[in-house]
Amino acid sequence: MRPSGRAPDALRTISLETGVSAYAEGSCLAKFGNTHVLCTASWESKVPGWMKGKGEGWVTGEYGMLPRATHTRGSREAARGKQSGRTQEIQRLIGRSLRAVTDLKALGENQITIDCDVIQADGGTRTASITGGYVALALACKYLVKEGVISTFPLTAQAAAISCGVYKDTPVLDLDYPEDSEGEVDANFVMTSDGNIIEIQGTGEERSFTRDEFAAMMDLASKGCGELFEAQRKALGE
Amino acid sequence: MRPSGRAPDALRTISLETGVSAYAEGSCLAKFGNTHVLCTASWESKVPGWMKGKGEGWVTGEYGMLPRATHTRGSREAARGKQSGRTQEIQRLIGRSLRAVTDLKALGENQITIDCDVIQADGGTRTASITGGYVALALACKYLVKEGVISTFPLTAQAAAISCGVYKDTPVLDLDYPEDSEGEVDANFVMTSDGNIIEIQGTGEERSFTRDEFAAMMDLASKGCGELFEAQRKALGE
Amino acid sequence: MRPSGRAPDALRTISLETGVSAYAEGSCLAKFGNTHVLCTASWESKVPGWMKGKGEGWVTGEYGMLPRATHTRGSREAARGKQSGRTQEIQRLIGRSLRAVTDLKALGENQITIDCDVIQADGGTRTASITGGYVALALACKYLVKEGVISTFPLTAQAAAISCGVYKDTPVLDLDYPEDSEGEVDANFVMTSDGNIIEIQGTGEERSFTRDEFAAMMDLASKGCGELFEAQRKALGE
Amino acid sequence: MRPSGRAPDALRTISLETGVSAYAEGSCLAKFGNTHVLCTASWESKVPGWMKGKGEGWVTGEYGMLPRATHTRGSREAARGKQSGRTQEIQRLIGRSLRAVTDLKALGENQITIDCDVIQADGGTRTASITGGYVALALACKYLVKEGVISTFPLTAQAAAISCGVYKDTPVLDLDYPEDSEGEVDANFVMTSDGNIIEIQGTGEERSFTRDEFAAMMDLASKGCGELFEAQRKALGE
Amino acid sequence: MRPSGRAPDALRTISLETGVSAYAEGSCLAKFGNTHVLCTASWESKVPGWMKGKGEGWVTGEYGMLPRATHTRGSREAARGKQSGRTQEIQRLIGRSLRAVTDLKALGENQITIDCDVIQADGGTRTASITGGYVALALACKYLVKEGVISTFPLTAQAAAISCGVYKDTPVLDLDYPEDSEGEVDANFVMTSDGNIIEIQGTGEERSFTRDEFAAMMDLASKGCGELFEAQRKALGE
Amino acid sequence: MRPSGRAPDALRTISLETGVSAYAEGSCLAKFGNTHVLCTASWESKVPGWMKGKGEGWVTGEYGMLPRATHTRGSREAARGKQSGRTQEIQRLIGRSLRAVTDLKALGENQITIDCDVIQADGGTRTASITGGYVALALACKYLVKEGVISTFPLTAQAAAISCGVYKDTPVLDLDYPEDSEGEVDANFVMTSDGNIIEIQGTGEERSFTRDEFAAMMDLASKGCGELFEAQRKALGE
Repeated sequence: MRPSGRAPDALRTISLETGVSAYAEGSCLAKFGNTHVLCTASWESKVPGWMKGKGEGWVTGEYGMLPRATHTRGSREAARGKQSGRTQEIQRLIGRSLRAVTDLKALGENQITIDCDVIQADGGTRTASITGGYVALALACKYLVKEGVISTFPLTAQAAAISCGVYKDTPVLDLDYPEDSEGEVDANFVMTSDGNIIEIQGTGEERSFTRDEFAAMMDLASKGCGELFEAQRKALGE
Repeated sequence: MRPSGRAPDALRTISLETGVSAYAEGSCLAKFGNTHVLCTASWESKVPGWMKGKGEGWVTGEYGMLPRATHTRGSREAARGKQSGRTQEIQRLIGRSLRAVTDLKALGENQITIDCDVIQADGGTRTASITGGYVALALACKYLVKEGVISTFPLTAQAAAISCGVYKDTPVLDLDYPEDSEGEVDANFVMTSDGNIIEIQGTGEERSFTRDEFAAMMDLASKGCGELFEAQRKALGE
Repeated sequence: MRPSGRAPDALRTISLETGVSAYAEGSCLAKFGNTHVLCTASWESKVPGWMKGKGEGWVTGEYGMLPRATHTRGSREAARGKQSGRTQEIQRLIGRSLRAVTDLKALGENQITIDCDVIQADGGTRTASITGGYVALALACKYLVKEGVISTFPLTAQAAAISCGVYKDTPVLDLDYPEDSEGEVDANFVMTSDGNIIEIQGTGEERSFTRDEFAAMMDLASKGCGELFEAQRKALGE
Repeated sequence: MRPSGRAPDALRTISLETGVSAYAEGSCLAKFGNTHVLCTASWESKVPGWMKGKGEGWVTGEYGMLPRATHTRGSREAARGKQSGRTQEIQRLIGRSLRAVTDLKALGENQITIDCDVIQADGGTRTASITGGYVALALACKYLVKEGVISTFPLTAQAAAISCGVYKDTPVLDLDYPEDSEGEVDANFVMTSDGNIIEIQGTGEERSFTRDEFAAMMDLASKGCGELFEAQRKALGE
Repeated sequence: MRPSGRAPDALRTISLETGVSAYAEGSCLAKFGNTHVLCTASWESKVPGWMKGKGEGWVTGEYGMLPRATHTRGSREAARGKQSGRTQEIQRLIGRSLRAVTDLKALGENQITIDCDVIQADGGTRTASITGGYVALALACKYLVKEGVISTFPLTAQAAAISCGVYKDTPVLDLDYPEDSEGEVDANFVMTSDGNIIEIQGTGEERSFTRDEFAAMMDLASKGCGELFEAQRKALGE
Repeated sequence: MRPSGRAPDALRTISLETGVSAYAEGSCLAKFGNTHVLCTASWESKVPGWMKGKGEGWVTGEYGMLPRATHTRGSREAARGKQSGRTQEIQRLIGRSLRAVTDLKALGENQITIDCDVIQADGGTRTASITGGYVALALACKYLVKEGVISTFPLTAQAAAISCGVYKDTPVLDLDYPEDSEGEVDANFVMTSDGNIIEIQGTGEERSFTRDEFAAMMDLASKGCGELFEAQRKALGE
């Protein structure tokens, strides 16, 4: 029934390749099928002005898409002179999600910036960004511990994200672009490896949805995130 | 237990005053306690360029906050020269939520812009914007029917929104600013009067949350939206 | 003769309601007939960088208009990404006018920002802004004296503003929108309660004007400002 | 008494040199003492979008200042990415003043842009801009008549501008920078050669001023503009 | 002598991998050692407004760098809201260079946009962009011929680019970052496969250079471009 | 053969008039035929933030063009809100060229900004800017030595620039606008008075060029710069 032939509860092929940047303190090329996001974690030994002197660190996210990541070329945000509302929404989500699993005190006055740049887009770029961004962040944290910058690994759980939707009235996991563009209902879930929820964004612009549909999507998301946590651990050699 | 002394499932005093603008096709001053949002609906007999010739209309939202709506003065977005990510996120949400209850075909090639300007802010400005924005939209639609611009009232259900949160480990309804700034978990629900869900935005930056906590918040939201639908009908004289 | 039926030397109904903001150090909702401007005064215990260390304070104005304050919706300046020349002209005028009655030394190194936001516009928004802005400023100054931040009330006189015009060849006081849009000549006067002039802006784009016409407008403005000073004193309980 | 040794009612040396641009339809280098403004008039056979089809023309002004026109270098507006409020105020004034002496119907659907670029500034740049801008505009209009683009010379009177001020309690004509920066009161007058007034901008930020002071300044301005009209006619060979 | 141990006239390892984008009409990942640039060619069946109706096509370039392409993270141009002067300079160069080998008439009214996005930077990003951009452009042109959009392959020669410099007083080919940052003199050459020159940019900020040094660099560039033309032909299967 | 009737190796009439600004520390109105550029050098006793504490100075360039410097009016960059890529390219070139002949250590922690504003344009504005900018810079440096701000004249050689091109297959010196707009090949050379090269920018968008053509242009440029160095020395009274 799905355009890709996947079962309703099947993820696309997931690949989390580490060490893809020669310079970043942590990096991960996250592939969810044809969606490819390059995630890098960059460390600075300082925090934003409004956080100085609190003895706490900061984790922030930035998001971008190459103009021809998509079927038809989109305009370059740098050329247009501003980031779209969508871009800002996504990068705020990435930062929030990763801070939720970070003990900012344990990070000390250090900032880690997670850049998520979409090389190729086939739906689900924000969930690939968060899932790959976690891996890049974890690698950077390990680096900081190894270098003696901080004494404790500051991440309290893994974070991963997946989308669900209602496609032709069936709840399905991990929407690709053909499903997403036709799908009536669309929900993104960010979860932790200890079984909790960080963020839920469910939207029914085409049609509203019922509590039952929502519960079915949440079940799918739990299953999908379980597989993503497994993939993250493998990528991190844990 | 709540700073305001309200019961966990109690809304603030809600007021939806109509006819507050001398010029707008529909208007509503929405008060959720000390949060006051002026919502106006402005009609134009044209649609955005990318929609021309489809025979469909468009509903869009814009959001702003007066600089001294808050405890300490914020900078003016027009002076800074750009809208914040938060503003854009909220105005996208307003537009999406109201389109979800609009039959765009029945609206014909007309555009209605819902401006939600926060005069005073005490938490929950986006939910007051959507709830009051629905009233302004409904008034504008009635006006268009009365004037013969369109033949059918194009709204398919009422839309209202409310926030919930977990405050000192208790799920509570309709967060005010003291609760919101301390609250660990925060969720906004947009619902329809026929019992469905348009949008869910649940965020746990301070700490993640459980499925049970989420279910409790959704129950509170259903109750709260029920009261808001009632208030909307009263404001519209239905 | 006037569309409103007013006598040539008659103001519209004037209302200066104080205490309209829960948070601002001073606030006033100024109504000149259907023109409604919300004026708030916000105090900060610091001055702009270029004034630091002089032992003097600063008073500045900002001006905005809600998109649907007018008959047809205007675009939102924050969305367009810049303030119009007209907005900047008006906010510079507000600041200049209020500084002219402020002893900046007596204010110490404090800044007061007067935000004038037009909720509804029917001509004369800049004069309502200055007249209401003075009230908000005076309230904030009283607050600073009461709180012991400064020892002397720093305002040296009241400031008020009114427009005049030549409408169908007759000089008239306090133009409303129908008069303003048809009027050939338009002049704004800012005056002090001790009988002096702070600012005159007279413009004859449609046609130039004579010295006699200008003198007649100045007489009208003196009369009108006298009534506004009275209304300000009443609003301030003096 | 004046720093320059001028009598209170004496203009600076005025020079209006025409034909200074190889390309513009009209040009004038206006010198008021050490204030030098290059004014060019550029013709286009079209009008702004909102004026199309009315059979009328448009005259507009733009204003700029070279970074080192002043004693200390100012930043370049193009580099900062926006025009200051002061720049916008002045260019709006230039356009308004010149349109007041233009019969826009006689101009047909043509637009003339008057660029006023300050090469060197010693006070009074806006008055030199208007006075020189008139000359450039008149030359461009003569050119359009000569070329047969329009049949009637569309200017109905000359326009010129001069500043006055109160310097050490004496009303004086044509403020230079040392007077302007110390002067308490400052007024700009735009007048027509048939004895009327186009625009008055009087400002007393340092101190307010009396009606008598204002009347004295207006007398000085009439005298000064008389001399400027004479200089304009000489420059235009009339 | 060179930090990399290369001979003065040795290129870094060059790789031009095609078919790296699932959607673009042509794509090439160009690697000059550790400098990696993703080049995509996007076709649109229209030209910019100012070119319409001439029967000619257009080729344009855009350039960007991922924030962590470099040793230390740079700020994101989209977030800063404008492209740097350097970025604009480079993208103008890319467009100019590729248009120089394109018969715009043979391209018909089609536009091809070459996006060059630097994934990793180790010096020479503009030369890798042009060299890889040519391959992407050639692939897109072949696609247009194959699809029957145009009848003739419109490229008249190959274009490739390489940098040279004077490092420790020796002219060397293909500067990497350690050489570039220390190098006193730096020159970029864009050449055609028929032995001509499209563009030369030679800069001696640290010290000026002699005609002999320049001639030596041009010899190196000719040799280097010869190898790049060979690599391009291999990548294109020619 | 040339539209101007000049010999292939003839410069236009060159004039370098000094002392044209009443305020700048150095100034020069550079005329290359009908191309007129006003160059001013402005001194500040501070350096950009990133250079503080190094004991070195900085020289930077800014470039602008009056809207009606050209045959048809161009839009004002300050009004458009950004500088074009071309403007940024030119001002970067001006700064780089003049720094190449400045001993930044000898300049101490002082910054000199060279503003090059094109009053009239007939081709070659960047070369006139550099040639005149050098004169303004030299005058400012002499002023700093005379005032005792620095002890040694910090310029190590003269810098001048000239364009060459291939016009109707003949290499020619100092292109004017008619040649430039038709010319197939265009190269700018910045040279030092001790016989070296600072910068070469050669471009063949219309057609590529040969090494022989390039060598011929370089010979012409050497001859032309020789004459410009002579004119600079005369202007500086050396």
